[in-house]
Amino acid sequence: MPRKVVVVGSGAAGMTAASNARKQNPEAEISVFTEDEHFAYSPCAIPYVIEGKIRDFESIIMHDLAFYKKERNIDIHTRTKVAGADLAKKSITLADGATHHYDSLVVATGSNVLIPPVQGADLKGVFTVRNINDGMIVRDALKVASCVVIAGASVVGLEVAIAARRLGKKVTVIDLASDVIPRLLDGDMAALVRRYCESIGMEFVMSSPIQALTGTGTVTGIRARDQEFPCQVVILATGVRANLELPMQMGLEIGALGGVRVSDTLQPYVKGRLVKDVYVAGDVIQCQSAVATGPTMSQLGSSATRQGRVAGINAAGGYATYPRTPGAWVSCMGDIQVGGTGLSRALAEYYGIKVVEEQAEGLTRARYFPGGLPITVKLVADAATHRLVGSQIVGGEGVTGRINWLTAAIMKDVTVEEFVRSFENAYCPATTTVEDVVNTAADRLAQKVTCKDKTLGR
Amino acid sequence: MPRKVVVVGSGAAGMTAASNARKQNPEAEISVFTEDEHFAYSPCAIPYVIEGKIRDFESIIMHDLAFYKKERNIDIHTRTKVAGADLAKKSITLADGATHHYDSLVVATGSNVLIPPVQGADLKGVFTVRNINDGMIVRDALKVASCVVIAGASVVGLEVAIAARRLGKKVTVIDLASDVIPRLLDGDMAALVRRYCESIGMEFVMSSPIQALTGTGTVTGIRARDQEFPCQVVILATGVRANLELPMQMGLEIGALGGVRVSDTLQPYVKGRLVKDVYVAGDVIQCQSAVATGPTMSQLGSSATRQGRVAGINAAGGYATYPRTPGAWVSCMGDIQVGGTGLSRALAEYYGIKVVEEQAEGLTRARYFPGGLPITVKLVADAATHRLVGSQIVGGEGVTGRINWLTAAIMKDVTVEEFVRSFENAYCPATTTVEDVVNTAADRLAQKVTCKDKTLGR
Repeated sequence: MPRKVVVVGSGAAGMTAASNARKQNPEAEISVFTEDEHFAYSPCAIPYVIEGKIRDFESIIMHDLAFYKKERNIDIHTRTKVAGADLAKKSITLADGATHHYDSLVVATGSNVLIPPVQGADLKGVFTVRNINDGMIVRDALKVASCVVIAGASVVGLEVAIAARRLGKKVTVIDLASDVIPRLLDGDMAALVRRYCESIGMEFVMSSPIQALTGTGTVTGIRARDQEFPCQVVILATGVRANLELPMQMGLEIGALGGVRVSDTLQPYVKGRLVKDVYVAGDVIQCQSAVATGPTMSQLGSSATRQGRVAGINAAGGYATYPRTPGAWVSCMGDIQVGGTGLSRALAEYYGIKVVEEQAEGLTRARYFPGGLPITVKLVADAATHRLVGSQIVGGEGVTGRINWLTAAIMKDVTVEEFVRSFENAYCPATTTVEDVVNTAADRLAQKVTCKDKTLGR
Repeated sequence: MPRKVVVVGSGAAGMTAASNARKQNPEAEISVFTEDEHFAYSPCAIPYVIEGKIRDFESIIMHDLAFYKKERNIDIHTRTKVAGADLAKKSITLADGATHHYDSLVVATGSNVLIPPVQGADLKGVFTVRNINDGMIVRDALKVASCVVIAGASVVGLEVAIAARRLGKKVTVIDLASDVIPRLLDGDMAALVRRYCESIGMEFVMSSPIQALTGTGTVTGIRARDQEFPCQVVILATGVRANLELPMQMGLEIGALGGVRVSDTLQPYVKGRLVKDVYVAGDVIQCQSAVATGPTMSQLGSSATRQGRVAGINAAGGYATYPRTPGAWVSCMGDIQVGGTGLSRALAEYYGIKVVEEQAEGLTRARYFPGGLPITVKLVADAATHRLVGSQIVGGEGVTGRINWLTAAIMKDVTVEEFVRSFENAYCPATTTVEDVVNTAADRLAQKVTCKDKTLGR
């Protein structure tokens, strides 16, 4: 009998799991169950469709039902809620009561936007941006709106804010935190992003909890700092939270950060015991930080894809592991690119790690080469061991490659001194400076850690 | 008495050595002696000035004599040839007989273009492209030429060839090798570069030694394959050779590849003994390969800068090392970028390393994101250990960052399996695909090495 692989969820983790299960096992029966109508699309692309940079929502959908059936022999059941799973019987139960047996189960239920518990959050004109349907509704709502408030200066919040601004709207961003993209960016780097956003006319109301959304039936404003900010559209980008409904019904252990706790093979635990034949991947899990002792919630499309691959291979009878994540991310925000990897100072503090940090400003091309853009690289090192633990970069181009470069160094526990000694950049005046700004930042940080050591009498 | 630091040579290595000696030692007396008229400029930029992409030659000069004197208290003696150095007396002798004492000496005499020993190489209209003066002469010569032959399909050769082609010249590239950029690129990747060059109208005559340059007084053609290729300008880009005149006069040991043999501190050897207070950096040295057992000639601006830093720090009384080089390089050739790091298959063969290789084609942005360009990544792994030993990339954008990323993995002896497991890329649809093409190539290579192992019964 062919192995029955059941996947719950059709995001990056779920669909990658299904496809990799197929690659691993040509004979398996593979089914995906999802509440969503659309699948196999990139949620990260939604802000760019809203902005009009990407033509339409159809173009961000990779494949349809027929493709999965024909090319990969995968059955996808859309608009189908999985109400529960029985670990003993190895079966899932749908909302309509139907049950399906599984030999192995992949749980990839993703995450939901955290709706702040304030008055008026259910008014018309208040949206989240999670899936394609959300995106379509927001795009249409923006057509007739002139003032938009983004609640949450998160990455997605700012991406949507910039999209709205570029569509000519008056845009105000409100956040409880003092700096944009809190936790991922430290204040100094966040200031660069905020300055860019302000330069294109966006306004910020920071360190301010949202007190209420106002209006009768339809939103007409948002209250913060005891002030009313009139608007016709509010986007809630107030963070996401693992969708734990199914995992909790199954009795899976939930970790300290609010994600399902998993092994390197992405198997969950029930009462301290590893669960056989179940794999969990994507936004719903917490995984091991690559830098600090302790868990992290990666909740990135790139991580979901990697985890989906591992879950799919294992579910289909193979063996793969996802040991630890650097949490490397990047975003295009209008004319700038912003990215990070490993720990910010704020995250390092959470993990109890003392850090030394430095930054360098430079250009993405040789000074004399046309088209070069400013770029700022911040590096964070452990104060005791000098190993690089994180980086944040804001620049006009070339941020992704530099983040991946630094991720490699961080994953391999490279000290800042070793980086200076050995991590030579490739050079061409059209794409970098002879000493890349990353190396300049490393050089400065190496001098700083050495001075600190001397002060400490090491 | 302040330490007297003498630097011979004003290229990237020499000037970086002088500046780093100053940073290390505020009291030192620092002098640079150079035969050149211009210094502190980027030779890598010359083809782009010839093309007109960079405005003029003045703009690629970073600093002048007055800057170095005023800002860094460094004396630069241009058009001054150092005829010899006396290791026992610790002095150098200039061509005019004057001697200067040194406490420490940095030798950074660079390299010269290897002129092929063929008839007519001394004709008018035959040029090399090494320094700014060369660049100015070639730029002027191209103004009145219609047909240009580039002898040597090296990186510089192709950069100048593309510049000439973009200026509307008929361009023919002739090389003894069968593929462009031999040794650095394998045939499959070289074919991509050649195809691009042909698409913009360049012609290639490969596997063909130059038989003679023809003409009376002025070049009128070049003979290869017993055919005459008429032209008004010939550029010799037939490779470079370490400038060993001074090192040999000093009795420094020359290594197997024709560069000065140095320690990690960049000190040379005389009759098997490390020479005190002398440091050698840049194109003139051979250094340890980061990937293979054995020396390599890096001869890159980026390496020269790193080596110059180490030589300068050591010469000024500090301590730094340059242990091994990955030889990472990148070039912008018209609309494509080409780069490499570590070993090609050809170089691996030279070092006796058996390799397994794979490549992947992809896009630099998500399929639906406007502006994405094709990119091809080749990875090379050691067949026994599976560690990554090299990569070559040809693509429309983002090559430099990917090369640096892979260099980091190569420097840290990462296996292809570990790369697949742990080297997650940052993702944003505007700058990469959810699984970067580098990861796709790694995934394929991991499958290939696993299959090979199975076949071998491991």
